Formats: sequence, structure tokens, C-alpha cells
Amino acid sequence: MKPLKIALVGLGTVGAGVLKLLHENGSDIAQRAGRPIEVVAVCARDRKRDRGVDVSKVQWLDKPADAASLDVDVVVELIGGDGDPAYGLVKASLQSGKTVVTANKALLAHHGVELAAVAEASGGTLLFEAAVAGGIPIIKMLREGLAANKIQRLYGILNGTCNYILTTMEETGRDFGDVLKEAQALGYAEAEPSLDVDGGDTAHKLCLLASLAYGVAPDLKALSVSGIRPITAYDIQAADELGYRIKLIGQSEMQADGRLLQSVAPCLVPKKSSLANVNGVLNAVYTDSNFAGSSFIEGRGAGGGPTASAVVADLIDAARGHALSPFSVPAAALKPLQVMDPQDWVGEYYLRLVVLDRPGVIADIAAILRDCTISIESLIQRGRDPDQPVTVVITTHEVRRGNMEDAARKMAELKTVTADPLILPLLKF
Amino acid sequence: MKPLKIALVGLGTVGAGVLKLLHENGSDIAQRAGRPIEVVAVCARDRKRDRGVDVSKVQWLDKPADAASLDVDVVVELIGGDGDPAYGLVKASLQSGKTVVTANKALLAHHGVELAAVAEASGGTLLFEAAVAGGIPIIKMLREGLAANKIQRLYGILNGTCNYILTTMEETGRDFGDVLKEAQALGYAEAEPSLDVDGGDTAHKLCLLASLAYGVAPDLKALSVSGIRPITAYDIQAADELGYRIKLIGQSEMQADGRLLQSVAPCLVPKKSSLANVNGVLNAVYTDSNFAGSSFIEGRGAGGGPTASAVVADLIDAARGHALSPFSVPAAALKPLQVMDPQDWVGEYYLRLVVLDRPGVIADIAAILRDCTISIESLIQRGRDPDQPVTVVITTHEVRRGNMEDAARKMAELKTVTADPLILPLLKF
Repeated sequence: MKPLKIALVGLGTVGAGVLKLLHENGSDIAQRAGRPIEVVAVCARDRKRDRGVDVSKVQWLDKPADAASLDVDVVVELIGGDGDPAYGLVKASLQSGKTVVTANKALLAHHGVELAAVAEASGGTLLFEAAVAGGIPIIKMLREGLAANKIQRLYGILNGTCNYILTTMEETGRDFGDVLKEAQALGYAEAEPSLDVDGGDTAHKLCLLASLAYGVAPDLKALSVSGIRPITAYDIQAADELGYRIKLIGQSEMQADGRLLQSVAPCLVPKKSSLANVNGVLNAVYTDSNFAGSSFIEGRGAGGGPTASAVVADLIDAARGHALSPFSVPAAALKPLQVMDPQDWVGEYYLRLVVLDRPGVIADIAAILRDCTISIESLIQRGRDPDQPVTVVITTHEVRRGNMEDAARKMAELKTVTADPLILPLLKF
Repeated sequence: MKPLKIALVGLGTVGAGVLKLLHENGSDIAQRAGRPIEVVAVCARDRKRDRGVDVSKVQWLDKPADAASLDVDVVVELIGGDGDPAYGLVKASLQSGKTVVTANKALLAHHGVELAAVAEASGGTLLFEAAVAGGIPIIKMLREGLAANKIQRLYGILNGTCNYILTTMEETGRDFGDVLKEAQALGYAEAEPSLDVDGGDTAHKLCLLASLAYGVAPDLKALSVSGIRPITAYDIQAADELGYRIKLIGQSEMQADGRLLQSVAPCLVPKKSSLANVNGVLNAVYTDSNFAGSSFIEGRGAGGGPTASAVVADLIDAARGHALSPFSVPAAALKPLQVMDPQDWVGEYYLRLVVLDRPGVIADIAAILRDCTISIESLIQRGRDPDQPVTVVITTHEVRRGNMEDAARKMAELKTVTADPLILPLLKF
């Protein structure tokens, strides 16, 4: 059989992983795919670096854009970033009718619909299993495995860096900044960690999953995002006492009126739930759908091996001739996302306050909660330290998020409240 | 677009579920599949039964075999059983170049290779996502999502009836027979439960998963199977004290020499492991593969909704024109399974004995273990009851299974041992 010819653009950890995988598992893959997969060209800044696999015999491209005009079946884009050169390369490759395989979540979250339309117009194919949680085929699961269902909600732990930090904080009792530094030293966090720890990376991935699950256009603007920087060792301990763990959750939930709640936020999840037991750098996704019911999938989210596994799964699909709309339905049929105002989300909440330990403080806080029609489920104030800051943790019964934020603003104005109150959703499932 | 025309043969719980699903989610499905899916003919014994969906306008077939010669794109076989009429219908439909979608694990475990070869010869397609764990797309995950990997081991909880019984025994402290009766009354177990509780159903499913994972022909004969009847409330309690739960595990593990260990047996799994926390009627599969690493997927295994979800996922694949070898590689390329003798499997074991409470009994047992070169990890004898039967639980360090069985046989010959010793593997992962 004619080999599937590919150009590999970007030879970092993932690109090198793809080369290694094709080398080690090549004969099995050829049998499964019906034909060999052959790397005919590569492009990377550094030609000298040892990548563990001999690439001296393949064509080296001077710049990424050159791949678009090559005589190859597939361009694998592993450059990253939502702008050029990745954007231009992917667009030009699709325009020439090629298949593009990419791990670039930022590019797709920003330009996914446009690129899908380009692919459909030219007969190209756009595949991106590696963009979300490499070691678990969640894109395929939503686009194909659960394609018969209306999905009602989808929750995910989609960022291994955040999950590693939260797990380590829990295991060691240490604070965020300290654990972040360790994660950076170990290579689990970037020197510039904000895309991970402030929730942006999770937001990119959630957008893509929501698009596949609900048939909506990926829309970063329709997404409220908060990260894990404000979480303290105290929050993790208080959550533990309440029977919860704190996880950075990408959450999307279709409402009866067709509006979608989408948010990325640290949340309290019950210890017994599957998501609470996803530890370290693992990723996981939980879905509820109208015929399949609840499904849960967990695995390694990042790193050379798992991401290469996802890239090559897409290459095998391409070799098999499988093609479908990138976002499951044609780009023109993707509905604009009717977003639910996160303020309208009704749920239980965790509220953490730092207050001066004085008589009457709790009464003031309770009055604010009453005025915002918030019902207290529990209140914990550990320790006594007259006139010094102490931490108070409150959990509420179901309430509108907007009311919680009103209450938090009013509490922040109290002279006895010494730090910004922290509100975290309490998920039940 | 031209609809995908299907004949639905068998209108029990799953068949009715497929009708309901296509009715409720039809417009979403048409958009995802690129064309509508239309049931044009059905076949079932009882034409009168209310199935919740109007089937008065479709063609009723007199007998299953008639579907093979209809002008349809897909025959959905939901009759079950490894013989006729299912076998004849599937074979004839494939011979005529049709796509067959089936939930029939017994048929595929017995005749899968033959039927795959028939499909390949005629250009037909054989799809069977619904045959294993309906609510989780494990067939697709192995055949496509993880297709880039060499899979090293695969463990699954594949039978909801057994898992429900074991979970209920654990939660209530009741014995097997009692809980089985309740499961039958609730409809979670059949009146004739042996296919489930004696492990046969799990064996069928494991065969199919192993075939996809390792590229081997499904082979029921190469499989050692034991079920959950011998498990007592005491075993479950003893496992709990040791930090384990008892689950019926379908286990397959590729050895370095290319031989495959395949077995279905109740096993002790560490409480912290994902599989230990799969409760009630849920199914789950854990895989280890050489690039993706560990992956875990959990969901509803049976019932009308989840199984219909899997059947229709296959129909959507068919409508999209996706086709591939039923067992991922061409039938002729499936390797004959080089089976590892289960006696050669080296692992830790749980051994439960019922002995007369007399001086010297433990010394006799310890001597047998020593003679079989088995090293004791722990020994528990709760309670004292001179000259009456008491239960002794022993856990071992790593040892060959054959040695364990030798030891059990020798112990069974002791006059002081009053019941057949029970050996359960202790899994570590």
C-alpha cells in the first residue's frame, strides 16, 4: 500500500515523541492503519539536537510555511500558539486539501470555526485529538463514541500542572507558591506559569470539548475563568474536613432553556467522586448524557508519550481514510453559544473569610448573608486569637452565584474583614 | 442526503432503546452523521408489544434471515446467542456487502475471525461497540484511540451483574445466594444466572478486548475462567481488613516472550485503585500502553440506554462512511494466541481455608506452604472455637500459581481442612 506521507513541523518533546513512536510501533501501526506512515519532511529550529531518532534522511524545511506546499498527505503542526506561524501553516495546509493534525488548543479555541470551514471547503481534514488530554481519547469519545447522545454536562480536570500543584498541596500541607516553585524545578510547570495556573489552558480545552459535546462554536469569551493562585493550604484542609477536595474544574452544563453554563474555576468536589481521586498530573473527564448515562475517563494529559499517542491516533484515522467535520457537525451548523450568565448559576458554595477575632463579627457576616438570602449550611472558625486575623469558613445551601458575589463585596467592606473573601463552587455528583 | 437505511432485528430492551434513541436524538444524529438514520424494517417475535415508539409504518419481517436480503445499508442484529438465527443472519448480511452492527459478544467470541474474514471479502463492515460495556466506547478506544500503542495489559470489570452482587455483599455483609436472589428480583440478574456469575460473559468480552488490544484472534479456549459463586461474606470482610476489595476481573497481560496471560477470576484489588471504586452495575477498563501510559474508562455497561448509545454510535460511523477491519487488523493478520499457562503466572495470592480449630493445624498448613516454596505474607485466624470449623486467611508473597494450586490440593487432603481452599489473585496496580 502507498504510505501516508507526513511533514512534521515542530520537534520539541511532542514532535520527538511522534518520531520515537512511529519508529518503535511502526509495524503494528502499518497493519492497523492499512499502510505505513512515513515522515518525509521535518521542520525545527535546531537541526543538531539529538532527538533519539535518526532524522538525517528526511527533508529539512527552512520554515514552517514550506510544509503547506509539499507533496504530503498530512501536515502535523506541533509549533503551538494561536498566531503565526502555526495559524498560517494550518490554514494554508487545509486550503491545499491536506489533512492537518495538531495539538494546538489555543489555535483551535481562537480560530477553530474558521479553520473547520476552510477544511470543509477544500476537502481537507482537521484532527486534534492531541489538543486535549493526550493519553485519553476524549475528542474521539465525544465526536464518535458518544455521538448518539445529547450531552447534558461535562466536567473535566484538564490541566496536569494545576492538578499536580493541588495534589501536592494536599499531600504536604504546603502553600501554593512553594509548591509551584517545586513544580517548576521538576518541569511540571513552565517558568511563566500563568497560562496553566490562571486557568487559560483549561479554558482553551473546555471550549473545544463543549463545542463537540453541544454542537456550539468554541467561544472563549463566553467563559468565566479563575485559577488556583488564591487557594491556600488552609482551604485545602478545610475542604478535607468538609469531605471534599479542591480541583481546578472545567465545567459545562446545558440548561433546559438551551443556554450553556461554562466556567473554569477551582471547585470543591466530594472525596468519593471519581474526579476527586484524579491525582498528580493526570487528566480526567466526566460526562452525563441522555442515553449512555455517566461516563468517566482518566489518563495522562501531557508529556511526549501520551501526546504523541494522540497525534498518531489521528494519523491512523487519516491513513484509514476516516474524515468528518472537525467539530462533529459542519462548521456552518455550529450554533452560536447561548451563554448562561455565571451569576445565574444556582449551587452550593464554599466561602472563606479572614476576619479579626472580635465579638460581633460573625453577627455582621450572618446579617449580610441573610440580606442576600443566603442560607448557611455550616460555619467553622478554628482557634481563637482575640483582635487578630482568623479564618472563617462557611458553606451555603443552594443560592444564586450573583447573591454570593454581592455578599462577598459587602463583607469585603467590613473593617473586620481583612482579606478578599474567596468563593468556590461546591459540586455535587 | 440519502438516509442510512437500517433493518433492526430483535426488539427487546436494547432494540426498543435504539428506536427510542433514534426518535429522541434524531435531528442531532442526522447532523453529526451527515445524513438521517432511518429504520425501514424490524423483526421481533411479538408485534403487539408497546415499545414506546410507533413502528407501525415500518416493514415487519417474518424471520430474522429475511433482513439479509433487504435493500438496506445496515442490519442491526440484537437477537443474541452464538448460533442461529444470529449467526446465519450476520454472515448472510456481511456476504451481501452490508454493514452489520451487533451487540452479540458470544457470537463474536466464537465466530469473530470467520465473520471478519467474510466482511473483508465482500466489502461489508462488522461493528460491535455494543458488545462490550455499552456506555463506554472501549472498542473504539482500543481500535482507534489507542491504536498507536502497544498495549501491555488490560484489566476490566465487564459484568454489571457480578459487580452489583459483589458491591451489595460488601455494603450489606450478606452472602452470595441471598444477594443473587435480590438481584434477580430487581432485574439485575437473569433467572438462569450462570453466564454472568460463573464468568462466561466476562470471558466473551475479554476475548474481544484482547483481540483488539494485542492483534490476536479471539480465543475462548485460551482463557481460564472462574466466577463469583465461591465468594463469601467472610472473604469480602477479610479482603477489606487487608485493604482490598473483591472484583470479578477480566485480566490480560502480554508477556515479554509474546505469550498472553488471559484470565477471568475474582481478584483482590487495592482499595485505592480505580477498579476497586467501580461500584454497582458499572463497568470499567484499565489499560497500560507503551506511549499513552495508564488509561481508565468507566460507565454503565448494560441496559437499554447505554447499549443503544453504542449501537447508534456504530450506525453514525457507518453513515459517515468509516470502515476498518473489525478487529483493527485484517482477519488474516490476527496472530494465533500464544497463551501463557495460568499455572505459570507469578503473583501474590489470597488463600482462604476452613479448618478445625485444633493445635497443630496451622503447623501442618505452614509445612505444606513451605514444601511448595510459598512464603506467607500474613495469616489471620479470627475467633477461637475448639474442635469446630474456623476460617483462616493467608496472603502470600509472589509465587507461581501452580505452586498455590499444589498447596491447596495438599491442604484439601488434610482431615482438619473441612472445605475446599479458595485461591484468589491479589492484583497490584
